[in-house]
Amino acid sequence: VQNGTRPDLTLAITRGASRLLTDMGFALVPEFTLPNGRRADLAGLSRKGRIVIVEVKSCREDFTADAKWPSYLEYCDQFYFATDTRFPAGLLPEGEGRIVADAYGGAIIADAEVRTLAGSRRKAMTLSFARQAAFRLTV
Amino acid sequence: VQNGTRPDLTLAITRGASRLLTDMGFALVPEFTLPNGRRADLAGLSRKGRIVIVEVKSCREDFTADAKWPSYLEYCDQFYFATDTRFPAGLLPEGEGRIVADAYGGAIIADAEVRTLAGSRRKAMTLSFARQAAFRLTV
Repeated sequence: VQNGTRPDLTLAITRGASRLLTDMGFALVPEFTLPNGRRADLAGLSRKGRIVIVEVKSCREDFTADAKWPSYLEYCDQFYFATDTRFPAGLLPEGEGRIVADAYGGAIIADAEVRTLAGSRRKAMTLSFARQAAFRLTV
Repeated sequence: VQNGTRPDLTLAITRGASRLLTDMGFALVPEFTLPNGRRADLAGLSRKGRIVIVEVKSCREDFTADAKWPSYLEYCDQFYFATDTRFPAGLLPEGEGRIVADAYGGAIIADAEVRTLAGSRRKAMTLSFARQAAFRLTV
């Protein structure tokens, strides 16, 4: 990482990816806790109920240290990695989506494969998304 | 209303009712927009996906001016009026739930009839709840 610390970079990429997904019509919950107990960096819910998960990778080490990302696939319709432009592209597995982002916005540079969730899983995920979002509101 | 203005009283009752429902395990969205375009004072979503709507009534006039509350019934499993202790109890329709609350908490003094939502309606309501909650988070 040349400029900025790794947390700064993660924050910037998360923000840009969030803007992109918001523009695409997704409602977002950052730091979304999955049923398996792990946290995804961003979960998005479309108007039609489709669920996207985005995992932010700030640098090579951030990706290579993570053996758990495949476990996210079963909880979403589409999965994306989000990185900055300097991330070594060849490192990412083929077939998964990729977003390139900075603090101001982002773009999808590789479409994510669509794995349509089963009805019962979608129902549970939507309920979990709803409750996680609402519990973060200060009522 | 003897003490405080009507908006103050509405806020206090809403806060107390929210605490009660939170203690009961509901995730809450205040000012929830229903599919018919009207806003319910509080919508709650239980861990099992049951939906409750609470309509706060600060005083007699607040209730008598509202001809629309029956239209909320078709969007929830249970419906409650929330009032303070001074609200004229006889005014409220039989059969609907009633919460008495102040700024610090509340209690259910009449259980709400259970009207179980149809699956498609519940699905749409849960999705709407999820997106309304998430859109209020500052990402």
